[in-house]
Amino acid sequence: MKRSFIREILEAIDEHTISFAGGLPSENLFPIEDLKIATNKILDTPKVYQYTVSNGISELREQIAKRYTDEGFPTTKDNILITTGSQQAMYILAKFFENKEITIEEPSYLGAMNIFRLNNLKMQGVKLEEDGVNIDEFEKSLKNTKLSYLIPDFQNPSATTYSQEKRDAVVNIVKKHNALLIEDSPYSELFFDKKSKYISQDLPNNSFHLGSFSKTLVPSLRIGWIRADEEKIRSLMIIKESIDLHSSGISQYILAEYLKDTNKYEKHLQSIRDDYKAKADFFSLQLNKLMPEFKHQKPKGGMFLYGGFEDKKIDTFALVQECLKKKVVYVPGNQFYIDKVPNSEIRFNYTHSSFEQITEGIKLIKSCL
Amino acid sequence: MKRSFIREILEAIDEHTISFAGGLPSENLFPIEDLKIATNKILDTPKVYQYTVSNGISELREQIAKRYTDEGFPTTKDNILITTGSQQAMYILAKFFENKEITIEEPSYLGAMNIFRLNNLKMQGVKLEEDGVNIDEFEKSLKNTKLSYLIPDFQNPSATTYSQEKRDAVVNIVKKHNALLIEDSPYSELFFDKKSKYISQDLPNNSFHLGSFSKTLVPSLRIGWIRADEEKIRSLMIIKESIDLHSSGISQYILAEYLKDTNKYEKHLQSIRDDYKAKADFFSLQLNKLMPEFKHQKPKGGMFLYGGFEDKKIDTFALVQECLKKKVVYVPGNQFYIDKVPNSEIRFNYTHSSFEQITEGIKLIKSCL
Repeated sequence: MKRSFIREILEAIDEHTISFAGGLPSENLFPIEDLKIATNKILDTPKVYQYTVSNGISELREQIAKRYTDEGFPTTKDNILITTGSQQAMYILAKFFENKEITIEEPSYLGAMNIFRLNNLKMQGVKLEEDGVNIDEFEKSLKNTKLSYLIPDFQNPSATTYSQEKRDAVVNIVKKHNALLIEDSPYSELFFDKKSKYISQDLPNNSFHLGSFSKTLVPSLRIGWIRADEEKIRSLMIIKESIDLHSSGISQYILAEYLKDTNKYEKHLQSIRDDYKAKADFFSLQLNKLMPEFKHQKPKGGMFLYGGFEDKKIDTFALVQECLKKKVVYVPGNQFYIDKVPNSEIRFNYTHSSFEQITEGIKLIKSCL
Repeated sequence: MKRSFIREILEAIDEHTISFAGGLPSENLFPIEDLKIATNKILDTPKVYQYTVSNGISELREQIAKRYTDEGFPTTKDNILITTGSQQAMYILAKFFENKEITIEEPSYLGAMNIFRLNNLKMQGVKLEEDGVNIDEFEKSLKNTKLSYLIPDFQNPSATTYSQEKRDAVVNIVKKHNALLIEDSPYSELFFDKKSKYISQDLPNNSFHLGSFSKTLVPSLRIGWIRADEEKIRSLMIIKESIDLHSSGISQYILAEYLKDTNKYEKHLQSIRDDYKAKADFFSLQLNKLMPEFKHQKPKGGMFLYGGFEDKKIDTFALVQECLKKKVVYVPGNQFYIDKVPNSEIRFNYTHSSFEQITEGIKLIKSCL
């Protein structure tokens, strides 16, 4: 089994390397003072340190459920399973569906594909277009697999967001074939303009909706969740319990305390959106100016900018080895395809670099061409 | 797939129930003030909140490695993989060895057996005697399976501790058949008299040694580890990374900060040992006084007292349903066997009850006979 290319790069680079590779949120935006206040409010309570229930503490599940309900997606705490990050949510689902077939977007999230391989799920890729999956291909595949994995909001890696038409089409196809949808939504709150409706909202009993606090608050708490119907949550909880009994109680109590002030959280989210939008706009502008042969769409949210060189002969996997020597890295597009055949595409992360680093990094890549 | 009986009971009982069931450490012994101090020292540092490496932060791995080395078991940080509790360590190993055969003690740890089943490991049980596994049976089984799972110190559930002779015999057999040992050691620090030498110390390249802070500090941080040779650690890290990227960074930094003062930690460990010894002695005494038909050995460490009724016709699995009605619970012995055939044995946890509850609980069980 091979390690994730991204994780390998994250461990190989030093502090002098400009990294457009990982999905690291900006440390400048961590609400450290508010998290300290929340943490100190819970540290005197002995139960915070004890073993707790496998599905997650009630307070936190209730707060997550309320957010769904407030958005028009009726949800109770019994629809929520707390996980050790959204990565573990994926793992639990992959274990639940092991040896089955699954329809995925191409390109798709590297970490999910690694988990599917590890649990022997056979992946069928469907072409991702500018407004979502190719619907004909999706139906053809889902008819057989009965299970799909999509990232409809600001997709990783492509930054694609599904149009409402394609969302509706996916709903109809999943219903028609009595299939299941895993909707991965770590970036949904990071919209620059407006939030789209979750596809799962129209498929409450045929979906697993995955969320995370890693991109909206801080990653190191390692808290994510799965939203599904109660019966599915009960089944998944048994797997969760086997894997690590329960996610960090300290992390859960800190989050539950922090989230009590919803206005504060909303303001914090807005500050991330503003910051990331400025970075995305600047990254796109600099690419057009300094490396116009790289074609891309300006992101509308999320953490990534994706595109490809006009010259299809450029192998971005080979190129990144050269870039590494000049102390700049990105993730080559081929990493996000099932067969990993080299191509001319690149995923850039724009959230973790300064404006200066963005300009300098693009210049360095250009010099490697 | 069935849930763990213990976890089910933990969620079913109310605050009026006297529970001898779980493996809950005593909340009175949590070093809350010192953990608060450690936590507040790390909360200003942004990297504490960011994604971190999959194998665990260096500071913590170094501190764990140093403890091994100081005890005469040479270890570096590259021999350590941090896990989300010792439960996840078991899961990672079970995934690593999926579909293989494994030799285990009978009775054995319920959580491990569930994980083995989930990953399709075929378990072969070997009788556990008063001083460790039956050596002839162990060799006969290990010759074929090449893989074993043992809990040599204050075993869960039986409280058995291996004699040095049996430890040496296990070492020789594992070496002779070029096999592997998974040594699960969550209770090793909770000795009342003296600490035994880890079997893994004489099998540094044929062993996985599992440790945890759940029983020695607090469970809710969810931090445990695997000690193995560097090559094995690298392989296991790939699985770890797929499961949850990394364990809570906050938890790891809190622990690394707390453990800097080794004297404080040693004093804390001694306070647990003193408290648990008093509880174990009292539990044993009250059993002899109030329910002498229940035969057992007085524990020499750990968290459990194990034994059985002289009258082998008593079915402790049926009995616990009666006890539940009277608001007292324990774990029936059959839960710790591969085939779960009802028997007359019981595992009592003595660490989470007051002296009054111990007396009252035993009386209630006696009244159900």
